[in-house]
Amino acid sequence: MAILQIGAGGVGWVIAHKAAQNNDVFGDITIASRTVSKCDAIIASIKGRNNLKDESRKLESRAVNADDVEALVALIKDVQPDLVINAGPPWVNVAIMEACYQAKVSYLDTSVAVDLCSEGQEVPEAYDPQWAFREKFEQAGITGILGAGFDPGVVSVFAAYAVKHLFDEIDTIDVMDVNAGDHGKKFATNFDPETNMLEIQGDSFYWENDEWKKVPCHTRMMEFDFPLVGSHKVYSMAHDEVRSMKEFIPAKRIEFWMGFGDAYLNYFNCMRDIGLLSPNPITLQDGTVVEPLKVLKALLPDPTSLAPGYTGKTCIATWVQGNKDGKARSVLIYNNADHEVAYKDVEHQAIAYTTGVPAITAALLYFKGAWKGEGVFNMEQLDPDPFLELMPSIGLDWGVEELTPSEPVINILK
Amino acid sequence: MAILQIGAGGVGWVIAHKAAQNNDVFGDITIASRTVSKCDAIIASIKGRNNLKDESRKLESRAVNADDVEALVALIKDVQPDLVINAGPPWVNVAIMEACYQAKVSYLDTSVAVDLCSEGQEVPEAYDPQWAFREKFEQAGITGILGAGFDPGVVSVFAAYAVKHLFDEIDTIDVMDVNAGDHGKKFATNFDPETNMLEIQGDSFYWENDEWKKVPCHTRMMEFDFPLVGSHKVYSMAHDEVRSMKEFIPAKRIEFWMGFGDAYLNYFNCMRDIGLLSPNPITLQDGTVVEPLKVLKALLPDPTSLAPGYTGKTCIATWVQGNKDGKARSVLIYNNADHEVAYKDVEHQAIAYTTGVPAITAALLYFKGAWKGEGVFNMEQLDPDPFLELMPSIGLDWGVEELTPSEPVINILK
Repeated sequence: MAILQIGAGGVGWVIAHKAAQNNDVFGDITIASRTVSKCDAIIASIKGRNNLKDESRKLESRAVNADDVEALVALIKDVQPDLVINAGPPWVNVAIMEACYQAKVSYLDTSVAVDLCSEGQEVPEAYDPQWAFREKFEQAGITGILGAGFDPGVVSVFAAYAVKHLFDEIDTIDVMDVNAGDHGKKFATNFDPETNMLEIQGDSFYWENDEWKKVPCHTRMMEFDFPLVGSHKVYSMAHDEVRSMKEFIPAKRIEFWMGFGDAYLNYFNCMRDIGLLSPNPITLQDGTVVEPLKVLKALLPDPTSLAPGYTGKTCIATWVQGNKDGKARSVLIYNNADHEVAYKDVEHQAIAYTTGVPAITAALLYFKGAWKGEGVFNMEQLDPDPFLELMPSIGLDWGVEELTPSEPVINILK
Repeated sequence: MAILQIGAGGVGWVIAHKAAQNNDVFGDITIASRTVSKCDAIIASIKGRNNLKDESRKLESRAVNADDVEALVALIKDVQPDLVINAGPPWVNVAIMEACYQAKVSYLDTSVAVDLCSEGQEVPEAYDPQWAFREKFEQAGITGILGAGFDPGVVSVFAAYAVKHLFDEIDTIDVMDVNAGDHGKKFATNFDPETNMLEIQGDSFYWENDEWKKVPCHTRMMEFDFPLVGSHKVYSMAHDEVRSMKEFIPAKRIEFWMGFGDAYLNYFNCMRDIGLLSPNPITLQDGTVVEPLKVLKALLPDPTSLAPGYTGKTCIATWVQGNKDGKARSVLIYNNADHEVAYKDVEHQAIAYTTGVPAITAALLYFKGAWKGEGVFNMEQLDPDPFLELMPSIGLDWGVEELTPSEPVINILK
């Protein structure tokens, strides 16, 4: 058996550690990236942490340009993996899916291909380029598992669990993501600053009463009392899983909310006001042309550098309200992850950890045959029970809290 | 008669307009800059505003690199001016003074050569490179007038006026500069963003009890009730005139204060925290090397573009406390300038206006023989009376307010 991981950023870091901890199932592991030294740093970390369970299996690095379908096909044919795990940035998803189709190897990723915030790219069309592979994957007899991180990913498994076990009818699904950790920097992003800032400044999309609603960023806010981390402000934001849940789980309203502290938003607003969050090139006085967002990226700490010393916890939850046995019901299904625990396990912080652990949980289910099928699948479409049974042993537990049913208090800002 | 103006930024814009309004005294006017198109834009504005008083005199543009002493000498010899007015950035002062010495032509500028905020360059040494020309200028039989803007400049004339007419003994001199205008932008600087941001983030220097005190920026704050514009927070800051006043006016404490609104300081702090205010080069992911501060400069509005529609007033004042006839005395000598009035007069805002009008007032006194002398002079050294008599007719009036003597309430922050 063998797997091929493409991508060696923060999420790739955690996926590789977790794959190594389970290489008695996965077999040989190859990590490929445009920058081989990033793969080698991960391999050194895995060995330093003694995370390679079966030391007789291979753990190797390779160079690949993930935009180049031909190069990807050649790499896949050479490595001969049973599964390609895409841990790269979202914009390489389509190229890697095409390569998997041509090489007839199954595929798994952790976020949607479409940059939700670019002009003309919006949540309603988010999965179109990847869902277009459904027939091809069926034809090729391979499996594609899409969005197998935490959000997207586990939050949809939580919703599928609610459908299967907790509700007869669902009114609202609110996915909420709060990081109550402290990295000790005045301002930093927990993953790639460019992706992060594009995501945050885009319009929000939510599904309500059979139609898409679009509102400017940070104009819908709730305050919510989360398990362990307490009360936080969360803001409506465009996110992959709103699109896939809308497809597979009937509900009156489906919305994603991200927690932002007041200090974080102040930095964000200042940077946006002066134009630093723009991806559009500007010309300096000496003629140099730069994209402001890439300058910001170079100024901010490398997200990987935040992990040592990161303290506190995250909470990511799916809040479902509806009816069961003729009575109103309100349930929070959630996980708390701890930055320090994540660091001890895989030398990274909890944001990357909560994305990497579910990807490996899903990959294990694929290898064990519990999740199988020819075609392309989002997480809501698959049986939640084996996933939620397995995930705690991979590193993330989960809980269910019964709440008093209530209309969410949504504050409209500006 | 003729003058040669070097520099075509915001201050140069106002100086050229005011020179043109007085070209019956100055004669031919040549405006030189590295970028001739900037000179031509000023000339077009002067003609559009009908500001060329004597239309028979020349008004011309020339190209020159103000760092290049040889090129400057050649230009001066070609133009044959009676006075060179340096309206360029401070770092060209020494080159232009050297060229004036070689060509034996008098010199006037509006701010000190030394970047007060660079490593190893500090207020106590601020004027050293320019004061080093004293003997050379005496030898050559020419006059150098230094720092003939408002601050530095008129605020020192105010102090000299206090010495001459209002006090027997001076305890404290606080120079305070507040812009209560509104340019309608969320964040912008009123002059070159690079110079402005370097100035603001530097340590403050003040003179107290016969020694220099150095404190981090924005750590000494007063709230002061200004004529017309009301109460404002002002912060201790390194500024040229503290150095020259210390040289020529005995006082127990001499300090410069700049007004900053809370919103402005919030932007400043955010930008500083993320590293955007640094002049030190960084390398982007694609290998491009940029200075963050130059990126900020390219992002922010061109200060010149702020002038149309700029409303409100500035107040710049010298607050002097001491004794007269055995009694404590406290006096505020001040100017209010109006952005809209400045725009109607010369198509620019009041910040540049308050620097350009004093420069032309001083130049007129030189031409009229009221301010003369061989050597190099700061504004405190010259007779304040003819200057304060002339300045209102050039565009800026001034007033004296008697205050109740009181210990200034200085808040120590952080």
